[in-house]
Amino acid sequence: MIKVGIIGANGFLGLELLRILSIHPKVQIAKILKRENDIEEDFTHLSSLNLNENQTSNINDFKDLDCVFLSLPHGFANEYVKELINKVKIIDLSADYRIDDINSYKEYYKSPFNSDIQNNFDYGFIENNLENIKKSSNIANPGCFALASQLAVLPFHEFIDNISITAITGSSGGGKLPTSKNHHSTRSKDIFSYNINKHRHLAEIFQSFPHLKDDLSFVPLSGPFTRGIYLTAHIRSKENVDSSKINSLLKKTFNDHPFIRIQSQAKLSNVIGSNYCDLSVSIKDENNFVIESCLDNLIKGASGNAVECMNIMFSEDQSLGLKDMLPLYL
Amino acid sequence: MIKVGIIGANGFLGLELLRILSIHPKVQIAKILKRENDIEEDFTHLSSLNLNENQTSNINDFKDLDCVFLSLPHGFANEYVKELINKVKIIDLSADYRIDDINSYKEYYKSPFNSDIQNNFDYGFIENNLENIKKSSNIANPGCFALASQLAVLPFHEFIDNISITAITGSSGGGKLPTSKNHHSTRSKDIFSYNINKHRHLAEIFQSFPHLKDDLSFVPLSGPFTRGIYLTAHIRSKENVDSSKINSLLKKTFNDHPFIRIQSQAKLSNVIGSNYCDLSVSIKDENNFVIESCLDNLIKGASGNAVECMNIMFSEDQSLGLKDMLPLYL
Amino acid sequence: MIKVGIIGANGFLGLELLRILSIHPKVQIAKILKRENDIEEDFTHLSSLNLNENQTSNINDFKDLDCVFLSLPHGFANEYVKELINKVKIIDLSADYRIDDINSYKEYYKSPFNSDIQNNFDYGFIENNLENIKKSSNIANPGCFALASQLAVLPFHEFIDNISITAITGSSGGGKLPTSKNHHSTRSKDIFSYNINKHRHLAEIFQSFPHLKDDLSFVPLSGPFTRGIYLTAHIRSKENVDSSKINSLLKKTFNDHPFIRIQSQAKLSNVIGSNYCDLSVSIKDENNFVIESCLDNLIKGASGNAVECMNIMFSEDQSLGLKDMLPLYL
Amino acid sequence: MIKVGIIGANGFLGLELLRILSIHPKVQIAKILKRENDIEEDFTHLSSLNLNENQTSNINDFKDLDCVFLSLPHGFANEYVKELINKVKIIDLSADYRIDDINSYKEYYKSPFNSDIQNNFDYGFIENNLENIKKSSNIANPGCFALASQLAVLPFHEFIDNISITAITGSSGGGKLPTSKNHHSTRSKDIFSYNINKHRHLAEIFQSFPHLKDDLSFVPLSGPFTRGIYLTAHIRSKENVDSSKINSLLKKTFNDHPFIRIQSQAKLSNVIGSNYCDLSVSIKDENNFVIESCLDNLIKGASGNAVECMNIMFSEDQSLGLKDMLPLYL
Repeated sequence: MIKVGIIGANGFLGLELLRILSIHPKVQIAKILKRENDIEEDFTHLSSLNLNENQTSNINDFKDLDCVFLSLPHGFANEYVKELINKVKIIDLSADYRIDDINSYKEYYKSPFNSDIQNNFDYGFIENNLENIKKSSNIANPGCFALASQLAVLPFHEFIDNISITAITGSSGGGKLPTSKNHHSTRSKDIFSYNINKHRHLAEIFQSFPHLKDDLSFVPLSGPFTRGIYLTAHIRSKENVDSSKINSLLKKTFNDHPFIRIQSQAKLSNVIGSNYCDLSVSIKDENNFVIESCLDNLIKGASGNAVECMNIMFSEDQSLGLKDMLPLYL
Repeated sequence: MIKVGIIGANGFLGLELLRILSIHPKVQIAKILKRENDIEEDFTHLSSLNLNENQTSNINDFKDLDCVFLSLPHGFANEYVKELINKVKIIDLSADYRIDDINSYKEYYKSPFNSDIQNNFDYGFIENNLENIKKSSNIANPGCFALASQLAVLPFHEFIDNISITAITGSSGGGKLPTSKNHHSTRSKDIFSYNINKHRHLAEIFQSFPHLKDDLSFVPLSGPFTRGIYLTAHIRSKENVDSSKINSLLKKTFNDHPFIRIQSQAKLSNVIGSNYCDLSVSIKDENNFVIESCLDNLIKGASGNAVECMNIMFSEDQSLGLKDMLPLYL
Repeated sequence: MIKVGIIGANGFLGLELLRILSIHPKVQIAKILKRENDIEEDFTHLSSLNLNENQTSNINDFKDLDCVFLSLPHGFANEYVKELINKVKIIDLSADYRIDDINSYKEYYKSPFNSDIQNNFDYGFIENNLENIKKSSNIANPGCFALASQLAVLPFHEFIDNISITAITGSSGGGKLPTSKNHHSTRSKDIFSYNINKHRHLAEIFQSFPHLKDDLSFVPLSGPFTRGIYLTAHIRSKENVDSSKINSLLKKTFNDHPFIRIQSQAKLSNVIGSNYCDLSVSIKDENNFVIESCLDNLIKGASGNAVECMNIMFSEDQSLGLKDMLPLYL
Repeated sequence: MIKVGIIGANGFLGLELLRILSIHPKVQIAKILKRENDIEEDFTHLSSLNLNENQTSNINDFKDLDCVFLSLPHGFANEYVKELINKVKIIDLSADYRIDDINSYKEYYKSPFNSDIQNNFDYGFIENNLENIKKSSNIANPGCFALASQLAVLPFHEFIDNISITAITGSSGGGKLPTSKNHHSTRSKDIFSYNINKHRHLAEIFQSFPHLKDDLSFVPLSGPFTRGIYLTAHIRSKENVDSSKINSLLKKTFNDHPFIRIQSQAKLSNVIGSNYCDLSVSIKDENNFVIESCLDNLIKGASGNAVECMNIMFSEDQSLGLKDMLPLYL
């Protein structure tokens, strides 16, 4: 059994970590960092799990575990990571260690940057970085928009001339703090964009695919639903494409990855509640095509991908525990 | 033209007052009390109305108007009412002046009570209190649950032996302050009860129908929608009932009231966006029947009823302006 | 491993059977009856499971399995049950075998009744019928409204003088056939009642608690959400009650049942996606109290309860497989 | 008073025509073509309007009216138009007369084309075609996606090098026929694309802006809401742009049009329930910018624009009746 700890279990991502890890056949949730509220006070629906018993306020209790997940707001991980690093494997769901380049980090995040610690982290983009993750001790898990975008780009990135992405996310993407943006009375019928061509997840996309820096236009939208990201990428290709070329690239890129599915039509309801990311392609002409990707922002877009990383780091089957989370559909 | 002022236009009820009054053929919105934010800052969708121009911070500017609407949180009206009373007609949408009896008020509201001012207010339950409203200078507009309940009770109150009400309201009922209860991520699929048999609107119901005090059980629910109240009342009757008796009571009670409709089946979508309250009855046996009522909590349950009161106070057609707000259906 | 078959896998209940059984550690889904569409054609989100391979059109292929689940529309089970009975254990999710009394069945269902076969079925109300289910070969799984009602009634049924139930269900309760009632454009903001005091699930409630026949008023509502039933029961008691008496009755009734939770406040979001039924009580006075129950209509209200029955019939832990379906919350 | 008739009042667009026309100060709804169901049978929420009285099955009753609106499914208008043309002004909300070019029509619609009648129709893209509409007797009202796209394109079309549009519509866009695509149980959490680069509304866009034929990629999405289209257009410009140039183009194009608003941030909730189309621009660099547009698909995207055309054809104020439909916001 992998003995895991969770720091930051009281938020939406923490909630999903609890859901996933508590049904994982080789995981024992050994410690949860106690926050202001007991975990069962924030999540009364989990009252039957007796999770309060595993809470501790002592960071030292995490040092002899096998793996610690952190899901804290941006900028809060370092306090704990500096205590735990080199003692346990770390998987951090925040943005704090995703970016290698100090200038890029500052451009998007405006805050201090700890190169010494950051250097110890590998970026958890599994489908592009599998071999490094296998050997890694510390993972910076990708952002949800960043992963949905990068999975759409990965098979084709070498011949992208220009790409325009519009991606819409549900209200859970903004976290559990109540704001006017997630007030049900408006959000249940609203759509609006924010941070057009300035969203922080662009730092990750450009790190993975530097040549897109001038050729990507990116619009994130907020929509009237709870879970999921649905992304549409219009791509102009440098090379001629046809369906057989595209299909062979998709196959080559994702064939060994259990949670990437190629569908004739992407549908958000097909992935919600699961770790799947579904992709579909529509060719316009020999130089233009559209690829769409969709995933559950809380699972493949966050906690599910983090557990998939854990499986890989501990040499377990990549899909262990996660393949049992079938899409809800309804 | 009736020159009206609005104090408290920046909330959900104020928004509806603006929507209704700005299309009312005999109303001029002359003054809006300036709050922390300009009205068009809080409601960017109304930017085309140039409402900012009518804002003022000076309460004296309201004293020579014809009618002032107040839609402030509980406990905040008095500061303005004491300045305006006897100078203009007042329609207050808060709970502050609804209750005549000091003990009942204290039981439900726990706060100070100004009898001198409260005595000048008439309760705006139009269908039960029309003659008083015609002559009134100051109206305390009913609460949304209170009105939905009282409209269901009114035709039958004399022979109710026992009544069990379950009423579900949308997220707009809680106002615009973001809280964990109206966070879209949970609220969009949630239902929960609150203040069972202790809801403050019970004070109004018991004031209108004192003999129900021991015979009413009342459960308010919050549901996953924005607008509306749907209310189910199980009634046990002291007298035998049949459909002809019930229909004749409904007709007698509501025949002259343009916004009460008797439907074979109540449906919330049939009233949303309008000032209608739809009622329907299902008879179980000679002593038991169910009456259901539904209304838009922001319109007939608040701002629409307030404007209907204004029409009556100013001897206009009761439905003026309001009958043009047809139900949205979609 | 329990080798199971599913007849009627292409509907909403069948979908949930597939979700639950495919993660059950002691179940192998051996056969699925082929319908007009392949299972993966109706449920493209399950394309990764290769369920099509297990399809067969031959009823004989089900005869040497351990257990067959049927989730067909009302009136269609018999054709298969008469072939399978006494050969495999049967769990039927339709209404066809729930009612022992031919007159009651005819009153509510208007259709033929096969006493010979019906006599072989036990009613799958686990919390009231555990010992019979342990020994049973054929289970008629309760209806969703019926189970939500009976779980609320069970602890108190002996001293109920009068009970008024209002229960609201999501759109999945009506099945997957598109109709005007489940058209998203209206349903997403609608509430309406149907079959007041005539709902077919009343036959089950009255069978379990015959003395309620004259003392229950029952209003089923349809609401603007997908999953779940939230039920409010106003109860007048023949005996005086207080919180200690009520709590001890709740404890006595449900203590050994892993999916019934007593909460200080019932919330639908706390049970969605899980097999839990949450209950909460609010006392009005010594003779009147309110009990609320909520459950996921597709899980504890249907497929989850059916699998719980299977666990019991096969002497497995009652919660096996099911306890890993934690509430989604978001 | 303008005496109008409605043919096709029982659908979603017809419903909005009824809502808008019944509050229009210079319109009398004189005739409604009787369909299979009485209008108040399909729309019980309008029972108070006594619309049934205006129904007729005789097409001749429409010939002496001033203006007839048709809102029929594609392909059904001609039967009525050939009777009415040159007798009354006609405003058709279907696609049947929008396309001048027979080949383009056949490419997208696959059905017969009546050039003789089509030649008598002007395309109701008000902001681009005002002078023709003023003199027109017959209007083909634009499609909802087509209008949202064209309003975004109009100010910039001369220097567009490449444009990628992703536009998401609510469930009302598909009409009232219940289908698996608008079943609430999935649609309330679903997003999916359809007819990528093949949507029929492209015929209108290419007719207005022929040079975009090779340079537009267009993805229509269906989303989990009832009303509205939210459109994102990524534009690469042939000429350098900056905010002053863009703002002056926006002003020049739309200054005289009362329902086009330039907002710092487009928000769908700001236009729902109204005839407004809101636009906002975000500049990426000197050659790339994003323009977003949003509108209520049933109002500015259909029935509201049709009534705006009527106002223009009858020399009334362009916004008469329509400016009183303020956005709902909630």
